[in-house]
Amino acid sequence: MPSTLAQEKDKFTPPENLTTKYAPEEVHRYMLDCMTAVGTPKPQALALADVLLAADTRGHFSHGLNRLEMYVNDVRQGVCAGDAVPTITKESVSTALVNGHNGLGPVVGNFCVDLAVKKAKETGIGWVCARGSNHYGIAGWYAMRATKEGMLGMSFTNTSPLVAPTRAKKAALGTNPLALAAPGKNGDDFVLDMATCVVAVGKIEVERRKEKPIPEGWAIDKEGQPTTNAAEGMSGALMPLGGPELHSGYKGYGLGMLVEIFCGIMSGGQYGPNVRRWMQTDREADLGQCFVAIDPTFFAPGFEDRMSDLMGHCRDMEPADESKPVLAAGDPERTHTDKVKTEGGITYHINQIKDSWKLAKVLGVKPME
Amino acid sequence: MPSTLAQEKDKFTPPENLTTKYAPEEVHRYMLDCMTAVGTPKPQALALADVLLAADTRGHFSHGLNRLEMYVNDVRQGVCAGDAVPTITKESVSTALVNGHNGLGPVVGNFCVDLAVKKAKETGIGWVCARGSNHYGIAGWYAMRATKEGMLGMSFTNTSPLVAPTRAKKAALGTNPLALAAPGKNGDDFVLDMATCVVAVGKIEVERRKEKPIPEGWAIDKEGQPTTNAAEGMSGALMPLGGPELHSGYKGYGLGMLVEIFCGIMSGGQYGPNVRRWMQTDREADLGQCFVAIDPTFFAPGFEDRMSDLMGHCRDMEPADESKPVLAAGDPERTHTDKVKTEGGITYHINQIKDSWKLAKVLGVKPME
Repeated sequence: MPSTLAQEKDKFTPPENLTTKYAPEEVHRYMLDCMTAVGTPKPQALALADVLLAADTRGHFSHGLNRLEMYVNDVRQGVCAGDAVPTITKESVSTALVNGHNGLGPVVGNFCVDLAVKKAKETGIGWVCARGSNHYGIAGWYAMRATKEGMLGMSFTNTSPLVAPTRAKKAALGTNPLALAAPGKNGDDFVLDMATCVVAVGKIEVERRKEKPIPEGWAIDKEGQPTTNAAEGMSGALMPLGGPELHSGYKGYGLGMLVEIFCGIMSGGQYGPNVRRWMQTDREADLGQCFVAIDPTFFAPGFEDRMSDLMGHCRDMEPADESKPVLAAGDPERTHTDKVKTEGGITYHINQIKDSWKLAKVLGVKPME
Repeated sequence: MPSTLAQEKDKFTPPENLTTKYAPEEVHRYMLDCMTAVGTPKPQALALADVLLAADTRGHFSHGLNRLEMYVNDVRQGVCAGDAVPTITKESVSTALVNGHNGLGPVVGNFCVDLAVKKAKETGIGWVCARGSNHYGIAGWYAMRATKEGMLGMSFTNTSPLVAPTRAKKAALGTNPLALAAPGKNGDDFVLDMATCVVAVGKIEVERRKEKPIPEGWAIDKEGQPTTNAAEGMSGALMPLGGPELHSGYKGYGLGMLVEIFCGIMSGGQYGPNVRRWMQTDREADLGQCFVAIDPTFFAPGFEDRMSDLMGHCRDMEPADESKPVLAAGDPERTHTDKVKTEGGITYHINQIKDSWKLAKVLGVKPME
C-alpha cells in the first residue's frame, strides 16, 4: 500500500497568491487529470468529474472538489476499480439487477439510470438495483439525469453506518440519502435530495471546530442520550430525521431502513451495520444502490403543468418571516447555479484550494488556474 | 341532504351496561351492516370493513371503528359512490392509471394493489396511480396486501391540507402518508406506515382536551410561529417531519411533496391546496393515490433472509433505556395484534362503544354484542 495521500501532500507548500474563483471547465479539467493520473480510464474519470462539479455548482461543496481526494485514494490503493464497467446480472422489461464490479459510484449510477430510463421509455417504469458500487456523490445527480429525458427520477444509496435506530445506543444505518427529481414547465424542476438523518455529520463537525454546542435532537452520545456537545455527538451517533422519539424520529429511522431495503437488501450487497466504516479502505465497499425512472406520460396528461402549479403555489405562499421566502426542493441549488453563472466561476474556500494544489503536486498534474 | 348523523345520534341514549371488548368478527359484522344499511353493496362494504378492522386490530384506533361514521356519512350523502367499481384508464405491462369513480378508498386501493401485484408477477414491478378515490384508511393495509404475495408493497395517498411547507404560515399539503411493507423470514415483516408530518392532528387534539401544552416543533400558530399551545396549533398548521428548519423540517416538507407527486400530480386528481378540507363533504374528494408492488425474486436471491437479518440486528441492539427495546417498523402493531388474539377481542374506549351504539340505532342495524 502506498503512503497515504495526506502524508505526501504535507511535503508541498502552496503559494500564497492562489485565487479562490475558478471556471467550472477548469475545475472539471483538474478533476479529470487527478483521476486519470491514478490510472482511471477517461470515460470513468469523466463520469466522476461530472458529478463532483455538479455538486460544487449546486452549492454542495462537501460532495464536490472536497471529496475528490477520497476517490483518488480509493482508486490509487486499488480498493475501488477505476476501470470497472458494470454488467447486468439479470433483467426484465422493467427491472434490472446490476453488478458494479467495484467500479466508481458515478460509473455505476449513470449506467443504472440510463438503463432505467430505457426501460421506462418502453414500459413506463424502470427499477434498477446495483451492488458492487462505491460512493456516488450527490444522490440528486442520478434523479436529475432522468428528468433530462422528461422523466421522474429516483436514486437511493446506502452508506457507512452513522445513524442510530430510535432507542439504540449505536449506529446501524448510514445517512442513506434518497432523491426524487420531477420535471416542471419551462425547465423548472423539483429536486429533493436528502439524507434520512437530521443533519450530516459535517454540520456537527463544523460546530465542534467552533467549540459551539449543537441543537438537541441532532445526535446522541455513546450512552444513547441526546447531547448538545458536538464532540460527544461526533463520537456517538447521528439521529434519524425527526430526532427524538417524541418528535417521531422513528419515522426517519423507518425511512433509513426503506433506503437500505431498496439498496443493500434488494441488491445483495452490503447492508446496514455490515457496510464498511466511513473513510476506511480495508475492503471493498460493495455498496447497494437503487435507481428509478418513471415516464409520466404513462399516467395522466399534463404532469409538468400540475408540477409547476404546485411548486408555484408553495413559492407564492406568505412566509412567516418576510426575509425567508417559501421554497420548493431544489430552489437553493438553482440559486447557487445561477450565482456561478453570473460570477463566471465557482468560489471555493482558500483552504480547499490550497489542498487541491497540494494534491495536484502529489499526483503530478497541473493545479487549477 | 339528510340531517347530519351527529344530530340524529343525539336522539338516542345508550344503555349503561355496555361492554368494551368485542370479538373481531362481531366488529366486522357491525361495520358491514352499517355500510350496507346506507346502500353500499356487500363487496364494497367488505373491502372497507376489512381495512377498518385491521386498523383497530393493529392498535390504530383513530383509523378503525372511529372513522366508520365518516364513510357512512359520505356514502349516505352521496358524496362518495359506495357502489362504484374502479376502471383502468390506461396501462402498460408494468404501470396503470386507474379511475376510482369516486368509490370507497379501500375498493380503489385493493383494486390497484391487486393490479400492481399482477404486473409485478410478470415484470418484477407494478406501479399504479389512481384518481377519483376517497379516504382509504391505513396506508399500510395496501402495502401488506402485496407482502401476502411475497412482494414488497408501497402505498401513498394525498389528504386534506393540514401541513405547512417550511417557512409558510398556512397549510398547503396533507399529512400525506407513505407505507412500505417488505417480507422477512417465517412470516416476519417490515411495515413502515407513516404520515410525513411530525404528529397527526389527533395527538394535538388530545393535548388540547387535557389543556396541556404540546412540545415545540409539532405545530405552528396562525402567524407561522412554532407554538406550544395546543389550541393555537389546532387553528394553525402541522409541521412537516423534522419540525423547524434548524432540524431539517424541509426534508419532511419534501417528503410530503414526494407523496403528492406520486398521488395527485401523477394521477390528475386533486392535489395540495386543492384537496377539499378535512371532514367537509361539499364536493367529491377526488383523492390521488399510488400503489406499488415489487417482486424481490427479480433482484438478488435471499431477500427475506437479509430482511430478517437486518431487522434482527436492530431488535437485538442495546437500548439507551433498558425498558424500551429497539424495534423494527411494524413491531408495535404486531404486539397489539397478538394482544387482541390473546384476549380474544378488541378493547375499545367506552365512549367509542356508546357512539357506535347510537350510530347503530340511527341506521337501524344491530349494535355490537
